[in-house]
This record gives sequence, C-alpha cells and structure tokens, in this order.
Amino acid sequence: MSIRSIYTRQMKTDSLPHVLILGGGFGGLWATRALASAPVHITLVDRTNHHLFQPLLYQVATAGLSAPDIAAPLRHILRKQKNATVLLAEVIAIEPDTKKIRLEKNEIAYDYLIVATGASHAYFGHEEWETHAPGLKTLEDAFAIRERILSAFEAAEREDDPALRAQWLNFVVVGGGPTGVELAGTLAEIARHTLPQEFRRCDPRNAQIHLLEAGPRVLAAMPESLSLSARKQLERLGVIVHTGDAVTNIDADGVTLAKTRIDSRTVLWAAGVAASTLGQQLGEPLDRAGRVKVQADLSLGNHPEIFVAGDLASVMQTNGQPVPGTAPAAKQMGAHVASMIRARLSNKPASAFNYRDYGNLATIGRMAAVVDLGKLKFSGLFAWWFWLVAHLFFLIGFRNRLVVLMDWAWSYWTYQRNARIIGSDRDK
Amino acid sequence: MSIRSIYTRQMKTDSLPHVLILGGGFGGLWATRALASAPVHITLVDRTNHHLFQPLLYQVATAGLSAPDIAAPLRHILRKQKNATVLLAEVIAIEPDTKKIRLEKNEIAYDYLIVATGASHAYFGHEEWETHAPGLKTLEDAFAIRERILSAFEAAEREDDPALRAQWLNFVVVGGGPTGVELAGTLAEIARHTLPQEFRRCDPRNAQIHLLEAGPRVLAAMPESLSLSARKQLERLGVIVHTGDAVTNIDADGVTLAKTRIDSRTVLWAAGVAASTLGQQLGEPLDRAGRVKVQADLSLGNHPEIFVAGDLASVMQTNGQPVPGTAPAAKQMGAHVASMIRARLSNKPASAFNYRDYGNLATIGRMAAVVDLGKLKFSGLFAWWFWLVAHLFFLIGFRNRLVVLMDWAWSYWTYQRNARIIGSDRDK
Repeated sequence: MSIRSIYTRQMKTDSLPHVLILGGGFGGLWATRALASAPVHITLVDRTNHHLFQPLLYQVATAGLSAPDIAAPLRHILRKQKNATVLLAEVIAIEPDTKKIRLEKNEIAYDYLIVATGASHAYFGHEEWETHAPGLKTLEDAFAIRERILSAFEAAEREDDPALRAQWLNFVVVGGGPTGVELAGTLAEIARHTLPQEFRRCDPRNAQIHLLEAGPRVLAAMPESLSLSARKQLERLGVIVHTGDAVTNIDADGVTLAKTRIDSRTVLWAAGVAASTLGQQLGEPLDRAGRVKVQADLSLGNHPEIFVAGDLASVMQTNGQPVPGTAPAAKQMGAHVASMIRARLSNKPASAFNYRDYGNLATIGRMAAVVDLGKLKFSGLFAWWFWLVAHLFFLIGFRNRLVVLMDWAWSYWTYQRNARIIGSDRDK
Repeated sequence: MSIRSIYTRQMKTDSLPHVLILGGGFGGLWATRALASAPVHITLVDRTNHHLFQPLLYQVATAGLSAPDIAAPLRHILRKQKNATVLLAEVIAIEPDTKKIRLEKNEIAYDYLIVATGASHAYFGHEEWETHAPGLKTLEDAFAIRERILSAFEAAEREDDPALRAQWLNFVVVGGGPTGVELAGTLAEIARHTLPQEFRRCDPRNAQIHLLEAGPRVLAAMPESLSLSARKQLERLGVIVHTGDAVTNIDADGVTLAKTRIDSRTVLWAAGVAASTLGQQLGEPLDRAGRVKVQADLSLGNHPEIFVAGDLASVMQTNGQPVPGTAPAAKQMGAHVASMIRARLSNKPASAFNYRDYGNLATIGRMAAVVDLGKLKFSGLFAWWFWLVAHLFFLIGFRNRLVVLMDWAWSYWTYQRNARIIGSDRDK
C-alpha cells in the first residue's frame, strides 16, 4: 500500500465515530460483530487475548477439555472485521466527563463506550475464604482448580495415615447453582470411573463429594420439579447433597456449616457473583451485586453515549424478573447496544431491550442433565444429549467444535479425561 | 477384596525386591515398562504427574499444540502394570549408604535404585540471565515462553512509538541446537503467516528473528552439509542467523554479543544444559555438565544396586563419542538398566550398554527439516515429512497421535495455531 493510500485511509477512518468496547466476553464480542458494517471504527479492549466460552469452563477445571478448546484469540475471531482493532490491556479508569478511558500507558478517547466487563466470583465479605475455596471465572481459575483436584488424589496416594487420607478424598463444592452442580457431578465421575484402576495405595472410589446449598434446593432458577430431578441424578452419581445449611466458615481443613462440619482439603467455591468494579466508575446507581442500573435501552441516564451489556448490567424483564447473568442474555444485550448505536447514527429513536428467554439448561454429569424450555421440561439422558448438541452448536469456531466433540466422544467411551496435567511448580 | 486377601497380597509383594525409579521421562518410564513381568515391585517417583514428550515441547511453546497433546499422566500410562506404583513427590535426598530416599514427609527404602532425573537448561554461571531469557524444559517453561512471544506482539500493537514498537518485534533465540532452530523457524512462520491479517496498528511481518550460535555452525551434531542446508532453510523462512559470535550479556532490552548488540524484548534461551543436581548425591565423579560417570553397565562403581539412565548419565560409545542426550538414547538406557536388574535377579552376568544410533532428525519450520541416517542424508520437504511421521509414531498414546495429527493438519492448511492463550494474571 502506498503512503498516500495509508494517509487517505487514516483520514477516512478518523472522521468516523469511535466505539470503544471494554470486555471481549459474550456482551462485548457480540456488540463488536453487530457493528461490522456500521460507519464506525471500533476498539475492543480486553485484559486477556481470548474470548472464553464460559459455559464449558468447568470442563477445563475438571481436566476434560484443554484451554484452547474453549478459548480463541479475539483478534483471530475478528481478523476479517476491518473496522475493529483489538487491544490487550488493563483498563485503569473510565472518565465519563472527558469521554476517555485510561490504560496503563495510554488514554483512549471515545464517542460511544460499551462497558461489558462482566462479573467475577464473590465471597460475601469473607474474602479470606478465597485461599481455601477458589472460584471459577477465568482460565487461570480453571487451571488452579484442576491442579487442586488432581493433587488431592495424589496426596491421598502418598499419605500413610488413613484418617488424613480420607480427608484428602473429601471434596466440597459450595453453591448449588449450575456451576456447582456441574463440578460436583463431574468430580463424582472422576472418582468413580476415571481414576480407580490407576491408584495402588488409595481407592478413589472412597472419595466423598459434598455439594452445599444454603437455599432449599439446587438449581434454584429452574422449576421445582427439575431441581428435584437434578438432586436425584446427583445422588445417583454419588454426590452427597446438603440443602438449607449455610456455610459459616472455611479453613484449610474443611468447611463449617450452621448444622454440621465437613473435613476436606479441597473446597471449591461456586456460590457468589459480584459485578466488575469498573461499574463503580460510571456514576450510576448499582444494585446489591454491584451491577449498573441502566435505562431501558441499556444506556446510562447521565451519559447516553455509554452503554452497559452483559453480566454488569442490571435490567428488568417485562415480567418483573431480572434478566439472568447468562451467555444468551449477554449476547442479546451486545446486539441490542449495537443496534442502539446504529439508530443514534441515523437519528432513529431508541428502543427498550427485550430479553428473549429461549430456555434453561444444566448438565449434571454423564447422561444426566435438566432442560427447561418453558412448556417443555425434561431431564436425564435425552436432556443430556440436548445440552451437548446445544453447547457444541454455540461453541465458537469450527475447529473447536470438532476437537471438543472428539474429546467428549473419547471421554465417553474410555471414561478418561485427557487434560490431567499437574505441573512441577505446584508450590509457587 | 477380603481383609485376608489384602494381607496375603501385601505379604507376597513385600517379599519381592523393591525397584525405586526416580523420574518419569524416557529413561525412567522405559525402565519401568521393561520390568513389567519381572519379579519385583516398582515405585516410580516424579515431581510432575505426567510423562512429557519433550521433542515436541517447542510446539507447545509456540502455541501450535496444547499441553495434553504431548503430556499423559504417568499413572494412566502404567494403569495396567500392576507391579508399578506411581508417586507424585519431590525427592529431597538420596542416601546410598542406607539404601533410602527422602521425600518431604516420608522415606522410601529400595533394593535397586534407578536415577533418571534428566537435565535442565543452564546459563553457564550467568543465572541472572534467566529472568530475561527463559529456557525450555518443562510444560511451565513452555507456557511462559508462549506467553512472552504472544505478549510481545500485543505490546507492539499497543505501542505508539515506532522505535519501541520495533524493539517489541525483535526476537532473539540463543543457541543453534535443535531446540533453537525449531523455535526460530516457528517464530518466523508465526510472524509471517499466522498473525499478519489480525493486527491493525503494527505489522507482524516486520518482526526480526535472530538465531545466535557461538560456534561456527547451527546443528553442530549434524554433518556439515546438513548444517549448511539448515542455515539456508532458516534464512529462506526469514531467520537472521548469527554464528561465531558469543553472548556476553543479556538484559531487559536485548542481547550483547562480542561483535554486536541486538535490541529485543523477547530473548529465548536454548543454549546450555546441566544435569539434575540429584546426581551430586551419588558420591561418584561427575563430568563438566554435572552428569554422573557410570560403569559400562550403567551402574555405579561404589553402589552396584544404583543405576543411572538418560540425560543424567555420562557414557561413552564404542567409537569414543559420548552417548547423546536424546530421547532414543534415554529409552535404550532405561531398557538396558531393566535388563541388568533382571540379570542380577537370576544371577546372570552384567553386560555393557551399547548405544544404537538410528539417526538424527531436526525440523526447522514449514516443509523444512534435515535428516541424517548415517549413509543417507537429506533435507527439505521430504525430510520434513520424515520428521513428522517419525514423531507421530513415537508419540505416546493413540489419542494424542490423532489429536496432534489433526492439529498439524489444521495448522498446515490454515497457518493458524490454536493454543494462542494469554492469561489475565500476566504480572504475577
């Protein structure tokens, strides 16, 4: 390209409005894509280089899939979208009054800002529990949990004292939502099917998997009949389900509940969610989980050029229920924000975000799942197949789908999990 | 199983000689397997839980393969070998006089000991270079290098100053052996083919890849004609090869050589090798690289019940050359040690280890490699295919082979590399 044409291109680009998008999750990425043909230039900033297919993150944590199966570089996904630039950077501050954000070294000015930085796990004011009970939101979290689970079985094999060995074979998952249920079900499968013939001194089948839920039932977002079915399926897999008992303390040796105590060296946290702290810099009211209360069109009351999409947004559905913090909701919000920006650019009126609920799935383990499609509810083997096909379908990128399908088929037939890696710098 | 049968089994096992093997690399794992039907019980101790197919480690470091493709849990590999127990543990000390080793918490007594703890990279007394120029021996090393390479391109994309941007696009590989050549060739491919269309502000094709070799030629273990061919193939891929110039200093901004200076933010170390420090505890003379000088049958002069196999052993071939530190040599030593233990058990005489050299391969990049089979030497496309088939053949486990083949085919057609993951806790 000649210098002249670069110059022309630069000029042309610079006269277009600049849409700055923070976060390459479902909200941010779907907004970016929906602006592909809009007369804007887009900068997508994320602190990792990849889009993560979070619904399958628990499979990385339980050694069933490897990281590249569910993570693709954002700039690779967007390579053909010429109006989008991807930057790997940490956002230090948002300055709505001067329409700028600050990175470590640079500032970036925007005409429109989409904040889609999502949520992380939270400990309800007990941050000291994090050391003993890691949560699951990023790939690093998944690797840490994978290492903890596998190392516990290794420690049991090394241990000579039967009491201590039993402690190493006790696993506790705190939180009976979808992630907690998935983790507990998969742990039971690993203990009963994947590992037994490989150990000589301890028997992984003696492992106890406890799932703790403070509320009255697991999968509280589902209809009661499916919660009940999920509990039965979990128990059939060998999970011990505790409901209606709240965690009062977590230490290195186990979990204390209001009514009981469980000794365990491996506690996993799947209970609380807190919105990204960037939301606090927008000058708008927040809800209890730190989510930003947005207008009906997902913009901010004081700054109509700023939008919030995904888990960070607090929005109500027409039925008075909050829009759930799920991948489909984040995608829909991303697309809506993009259409609002298009509308502004052509002086068309804004419209309210309208969440379309296509249903609710949760997997539990091998051939066990529950599906709620509104009128249609089912569970068990067919639900599991439904879950599997749906997740494969939504997984980004043809190659990922193929590899994941192969990994699943392999695990299904052999009961093996192929990402069982523990490193040598475990003590770091 | 009844208490009685456990008791009987325990009795029977305990009366058998105990073979303790340290290290689950090629030496240790091949020794374990070769003792499958011997009247012994075996304990294999490693500080990771996996056997690593080290010849392909550079592909994990360059984001072509993911870790599970080349690493399989030792206890899974050995699940059917009932006389073998695998322990994940760090060896603190070897005590030849009392025939024991010490782990962090326990001791293990042995009748025969096989030390196969291999080698790591070394900085020839300049350990301070490690921060700026990481080496490649473990999966952790590979992840660290992968992150450094990908982050450099990201930093270049973020950078506004053209001089600093150029510095981020300069890559230096120190050491012109097989690993250095593989890394440099792959880096050139990434810069020229994988990344260009994905960046908007910097052009990855401007990247400079420097390969530094202090000696007169790359791949010094190969015949001179193949070294020459390798250099030409590297240069065709775009690598700048420097020979006969020694590194005198490495800092955060680049590398100083006797004759020149290269500014670079990404320096990779593929130069020195030092044997595992456990060798020092055996009370035998060591060679310059810290390898243990063993008897002709690979046992120790003062302790005939101790054997050394793999990269830690210093052994001469009948032609007066040292046995090379390669995977085939380690496998052969492992098998030889196992047969020596079998011979002892049946009072047969020991025999000298005899290294069989089946040839020497090195890959350089896409369709570029050199092969030395003694009388037959060739390079280029056919050598590359030969290398590919040979490595697939030796890769452990059917699933790994299939997945690696798929990954390679995918990369070949699309120029893409699917393990391009950078995490969010880069600063830790």
